[in-house]
Amino acid sequence: MLYSKLFTKTTKEVSSDETSKNAQLLIQAGYIHKTMAGVYAFLPLGLRVLNNIENIVRENLNQIGGQEILMNGIQPKANWDKTGRWNTVDVLFKLSSQTNTEYALAPTHEEQISPLIKQYISSYKDLPDFDEENGVMPLAVYQIQTKYRDELRAKSGLLRGREFRMKDMYDFHKTKESQEAYFEYITQTYITIYNQMGLKVYIVDASGGNFSDKLSREFQVICDAGEDLIKYSETTNFACNIEVFEDIKASGKEIPVDIQEAKSAEVGNIFDLGQKWVKAFDTSYTDKNNKKELPWMGCHGIGTSRCMAVIAEIYSDENGLKWPESVAPFKYQMITNVNHKDDQKINNQIVKIAQSIYQGESEAEDLFEANPETVLWDDRESVGFGEKLKDADLIGCPLQIIVSKRSLEQGGVELKNRYTGDSNIIQIIE
Amino acid sequence: MLYSKLFTKTTKEVSSDETSKNAQLLIQAGYIHKTMAGVYAFLPLGLRVLNNIENIVRENLNQIGGQEILMNGIQPKANWDKTGRWNTVDVLFKLSSQTNTEYALAPTHEEQISPLIKQYISSYKDLPDFDEENGVMPLAVYQIQTKYRDELRAKSGLLRGREFRMKDMYDFHKTKESQEAYFEYITQTYITIYNQMGLKVYIVDASGGNFSDKLSREFQVICDAGEDLIKYSETTNFACNIEVFEDIKASGKEIPVDIQEAKSAEVGNIFDLGQKWVKAFDTSYTDKNNKKELPWMGCHGIGTSRCMAVIAEIYSDENGLKWPESVAPFKYQMITNVNHKDDQKINNQIVKIAQSIYQGESEAEDLFEANPETVLWDDRESVGFGEKLKDADLIGCPLQIIVSKRSLEQGGVELKNRYTGDSNIIQIIE
Repeated sequence: MLYSKLFTKTTKEVSSDETSKNAQLLIQAGYIHKTMAGVYAFLPLGLRVLNNIENIVRENLNQIGGQEILMNGIQPKANWDKTGRWNTVDVLFKLSSQTNTEYALAPTHEEQISPLIKQYISSYKDLPDFDEENGVMPLAVYQIQTKYRDELRAKSGLLRGREFRMKDMYDFHKTKESQEAYFEYITQTYITIYNQMGLKVYIVDASGGNFSDKLSREFQVICDAGEDLIKYSETTNFACNIEVFEDIKASGKEIPVDIQEAKSAEVGNIFDLGQKWVKAFDTSYTDKNNKKELPWMGCHGIGTSRCMAVIAEIYSDENGLKWPESVAPFKYQMITNVNHKDDQKINNQIVKIAQSIYQGESEAEDLFEANPETVLWDDRESVGFGEKLKDADLIGCPLQIIVSKRSLEQGGVELKNRYTGDSNIIQIIE
Repeated sequence: MLYSKLFTKTTKEVSSDETSKNAQLLIQAGYIHKTMAGVYAFLPLGLRVLNNIENIVRENLNQIGGQEILMNGIQPKANWDKTGRWNTVDVLFKLSSQTNTEYALAPTHEEQISPLIKQYISSYKDLPDFDEENGVMPLAVYQIQTKYRDELRAKSGLLRGREFRMKDMYDFHKTKESQEAYFEYITQTYITIYNQMGLKVYIVDASGGNFSDKLSREFQVICDAGEDLIKYSETTNFACNIEVFEDIKASGKEIPVDIQEAKSAEVGNIFDLGQKWVKAFDTSYTDKNNKKELPWMGCHGIGTSRCMAVIAEIYSDENGLKWPESVAPFKYQMITNVNHKDDQKINNQIVKIAQSIYQGESEAEDLFEANPETVLWDDRESVGFGEKLKDADLIGCPLQIIVSKRSLEQGGVELKNRYTGDSNIIQIIE
């Protein structure tokens, strides 16, 4: 992609009411635009990162039998009345139509999936038991979709939005054993998903709160901007809330020696919903003996725009962002310095070399993956070399390719690592 | 994909309040699920078709300089007050928050893009004039996103939903000439997009209605379920509304001889918005002389879920759907008949051949593209051969691969065309 054609603009000024680091950085670097408190639009750079994150989620869930669907933003009030949540979920946005029909603008989809699934699980044959060894996956459907929460305060950028992107998966089982085994299986998949995004997660077991009195599991990332406080050990995935930690200590159980305390941000959660929702909607199936039974249900969320916020918070320094390659908008940002008015020959050479790298014609091994899809080439003519370098640090692609008079004098192009700051000259043989 | 693992179910019964053909077919064939009137969830098969349609749109818009972004469902009331549309757009859903802040649930995005674009077009340099010959594209951003309309009546399935998928693009120009030239350019791209989906469109010029007093252009497809009535000629893209046609006739202008009248469905529109929105939001730039100027703006929509409805209406017969290959969920549906209890050897042979086709190992030219991504293999054991054939017609993949005792006796597998009904035996050399 040519920078001169990209719809974005870096900016030094961010509105003073934007106090969160992730939103400040992402606005400054031209990834997102603030629509209003807690609501952000994704510009091309931001949408690329979001798509990368969501594709990591998608690919991993497809591997464990997840099937992608797309449910709705607006849902019938009757469904929320049925579970009693119309009046108890305080972040639920409510809508009134011209015809005075009331709708929920959905913050979550248990109230839609439970009646939806009903007609697809008439028989026990529709609910295979999870069997990892033989590769039998249970019925598990998921969506990646936009959700809404009427937050009282929304001051954490993409960390806690009134409109946000989320993956939610729902699984259904004949037996409690199948559900519990899949619960553990998903835990492992979640760890993989976060690792692939560059996030180390700590697992906190908790009770289900608003969703369930059953087991739930939070996935936490150490992050100053987080709203939680956890006790964790770096050598394990062990973590827990402060209160739980005090209980464990009081009970005399053994505690790892390297326990630390830190603020953390929740990037996902998995819930054992038991039979609460399927009961509310009479989502039953008939077993082998033609007897009506209720399935066991789980639900599992990953806040994909929230993950983007956490990655931005962690993978950044005073100069800007530094994305993990797996989610970066581009692997490379290429900066060309063609302001040598005294020497047109060098300018031409710089452009020629940049052109060939951009077109994927470079013979250098480190540049094999360069092409118009992976390189953001800062070809702007009205912007100086110094400002281009600053913008490259701000935008934070993992590798910077610098083509300048100096690099040519050293025999090639400079390849600079955004994480380490290390730079090498890549020899260019013409 | 194995049918036995696919989250879907064909059904004979569709609720009697579902009167539209597209929704009936798509529900029967397991593509969508009705959440409530005008609101449908996309099941895996339906999401595949929707993604195919949206990718056709995406690829073509990227080619004409469109840059993808993602705006928001909820928007500040203030923006809608500014254009006066808070009280004039009757299909606008309005939301109230806990803190009594009011939001619009967006049916369209002029009220968001106009203030958003403001900070990215400070200078005339940010607004290149469209120049087809030299490949210079103007500033054009688009999104493919979920939209909401508080329709009084919603009885046309995906044709007119309260929640629907839409692509909306917005372009901005320094000069009226650039805008008008791009308007014509987009018209050509739209024709290509619809052709690729299998839709022949007729272009109807009209005045802008709610959006603009400037020129607008509708893209209409002949379709019994449509809400419009047009006069058209098959040999041209000429079409117009009945009233306009009467005016033209009265004016004595020459009329093509093959004029016909038909019901049609609008699948997209393009609008010249002039400077109405940019004026309302003071979305200005400074020209070469540092003078403040307003850009010229266009907006262009394609209802992607509506396109899916129109395709379903047109590409179907009494037995079910028959998707154009470009949007089909799978290119092939493979049906295996392994119920020959008398001859286990034949059953084994059928499964072996099906397996090798599914794995992309077939040597036959007509099956070169077969693989787990392109083949929906109906491997269900509890369903008879006849029912599988019926389901394949209902689901409507373009080609059916039938592996049966009979086909083996004829030397291979049967390849049946869903459009023409023609079938051939593809020789299988083992």
